[in-house]
Amino acid sequence: MSRVLVIGAGGVGVITAVSLWFKGESDVSLVVRSDYDKVSEQGYTIESCDYGQLEGWRPHHIYRTVEDAAADASDKGYDYVVVTTKNIIDGPADSRVPNIIRPVLERNKSLHGAQLTTHILLVQNGIDIEKDILAEFPRDEFQYTVLSGIQLIGSTKIGTGHISQVSQDYLSCGAFDPQDAVAVQAANDFVRMYSNKGHNFVEFEPRVRYSRWKKLVYNAAINTSTALVELDVPRCLEFGVGKKSTATEVFQPAMREIIAIAASEGIVIEEKFVTMFTEITRNKVFKPSMCVDRDKGQLMELEVILGNPIRIAKRNGVPTPTLSVLYNLLVLVQARLKELKGLLKFDEKTASLVEE
Amino acid sequence: MSRVLVIGAGGVGVITAVSLWFKGESDVSLVVRSDYDKVSEQGYTIESCDYGQLEGWRPHHIYRTVEDAAADASDKGYDYVVVTTKNIIDGPADSRVPNIIRPVLERNKSLHGAQLTTHILLVQNGIDIEKDILAEFPRDEFQYTVLSGIQLIGSTKIGTGHISQVSQDYLSCGAFDPQDAVAVQAANDFVRMYSNKGHNFVEFEPRVRYSRWKKLVYNAAINTSTALVELDVPRCLEFGVGKKSTATEVFQPAMREIIAIAASEGIVIEEKFVTMFTEITRNKVFKPSMCVDRDKGQLMELEVILGNPIRIAKRNGVPTPTLSVLYNLLVLVQARLKELKGLLKFDEKTASLVEE
Repeated sequence: MSRVLVIGAGGVGVITAVSLWFKGESDVSLVVRSDYDKVSEQGYTIESCDYGQLEGWRPHHIYRTVEDAAADASDKGYDYVVVTTKNIIDGPADSRVPNIIRPVLERNKSLHGAQLTTHILLVQNGIDIEKDILAEFPRDEFQYTVLSGIQLIGSTKIGTGHISQVSQDYLSCGAFDPQDAVAVQAANDFVRMYSNKGHNFVEFEPRVRYSRWKKLVYNAAINTSTALVELDVPRCLEFGVGKKSTATEVFQPAMREIIAIAASEGIVIEEKFVTMFTEITRNKVFKPSMCVDRDKGQLMELEVILGNPIRIAKRNGVPTPTLSVLYNLLVLVQARLKELKGLLKFDEKTASLVEE
Repeated sequence: MSRVLVIGAGGVGVITAVSLWFKGESDVSLVVRSDYDKVSEQGYTIESCDYGQLEGWRPHHIYRTVEDAAADASDKGYDYVVVTTKNIIDGPADSRVPNIIRPVLERNKSLHGAQLTTHILLVQNGIDIEKDILAEFPRDEFQYTVLSGIQLIGSTKIGTGHISQVSQDYLSCGAFDPQDAVAVQAANDFVRMYSNKGHNFVEFEPRVRYSRWKKLVYNAAINTSTALVELDVPRCLEFGVGKKSTATEVFQPAMREIIAIAASEGIVIEEKFVTMFTEITRNKVFKPSMCVDRDKGQLMELEVILGNPIRIAKRNGVPTPTLSVLYNLLVLVQARLKELKGLLKFDEKTASLVEE
């Protein structure tokens, strides 16, 4: 039994834990911050299109913090650390991934020195997200690999300890460094531990960067737009002029700009995905993550989804008229969310941002 | 004393009534729908940058409906009907301007036949808005002129019977048909009746269509954007990347597209207005009308501000990449507002719009 610690107990993290638990090849620990008391007492209520209705479900262990999970690892440590938190590089320091996972890496090191390899699986959006970790944890001091998880899933926490999953879990898992044989093996092992035939769909991904750009085609065009209008995808499509303009005037021009940026990086995303991603959630009355974040007053994964691609486009001279409007409007929505959370200040008397 | 009926008691309508009352050349009637009881008992509370603090202010007459105002006109009728309601051509039928003003035109006709000319002043956004009226009221049956009012003003109803005006009232008034000498004279008379030196600024506008396109430069670019992000203009400008991207990547590209559409119609809007309109509300912590409407769950003047110009652009072959994204996103926001008001229905089971 591999010991797996899942960090992040939102719609994605909980279904990740359920999938591993269901297969029965892992000892599953879950860090449940805000919902800890409820879940500790009553377990989760889950409506899942993959696993049906679960009442009172719990993984093998739950913890309130990563520190608690690290302390309780006793002498075994964790083989896998699966990070499903949002990746908000413009957010507060304690939400940065290296800071989140540090207690586990330190604990594993103190228990086993170089004997235990920690496999860090980032089930997160965006490009180059592994680089922060490589920069923060020197290889001669810590023994680890970094794995990429790309997940297409419609799953949301709709209440305390209450998860609703409406579209099938599709996970592709691979090594950020395809030359690292240990990482490649660990990714393949994870695929086996996670795969539940007839329930979810999981595969080994040899082309991580391709896979990440492909997911951006959806996220950069559709996730972003829904956040500006605060509507699910079916409504966005049906409410367009002639039931068409949202696809033809917003989603698809934006998708084609992402494909052009990827191409400028040597990654070829096939045109067929423009139609596929337009249709994929047409009948799912489900708000994508950035839309949910705006509704809930939480920061959005704007920079890894849209800021980084646009910066690459500028570097490579790729025009992005549609993405630029979406991005620069969402920068304002993000700032508004930060102001509401007290992360930035605006002085109405001088009508200016207060520099900290 | 000219008898003036002001229809619409929002931020614009009330300051319009105040301006006419202040000058003292008009007998001012105001239709106050939702706030009638409060205003009837206590009058208005107004914080105005043009007229100072007014407590308990009332025009000469107030009415709950246009029908009441028409009935009370006795044998005098109204010389001017000033319409300051929103112009929402995709809204319910009873909010269409010809339906709103019909009781006054009928009453004036029944009182005086062809002896009284009714001057209809539309203080409203948009292009071609006079055509609905010309189509609905035959000239051989009704005696009237149609005048254009273009107003730049920061004024909002912030509570029941409570108005806050933060930027100076600037009104340009002219005849939609510059060949109609009676209309031109009526517009000049209105300018005189409305002008309060040192308080507001009002001028006769010989080029109504130019003036309407010019106002669209602000409204189509800035009013629209603020509605998508739900922020006042100073925050939009200050929250941009490097405090610049909102102006350079959203507002100004959008403004230049409006200028290009106007040019395709033979109207030359000078480039200097791009800078002028970027700066005009930089220090006013004030949400433009469409932003206020979204916040309040009211329909926005989307079609006259952005839909009509984009349709003209398509007809004339003018590219509008920025405006198109803004418009097609706002179409979704408008549909969401309509759904909230019960004006359209979406069936979540079939994930489709219900056709009525």
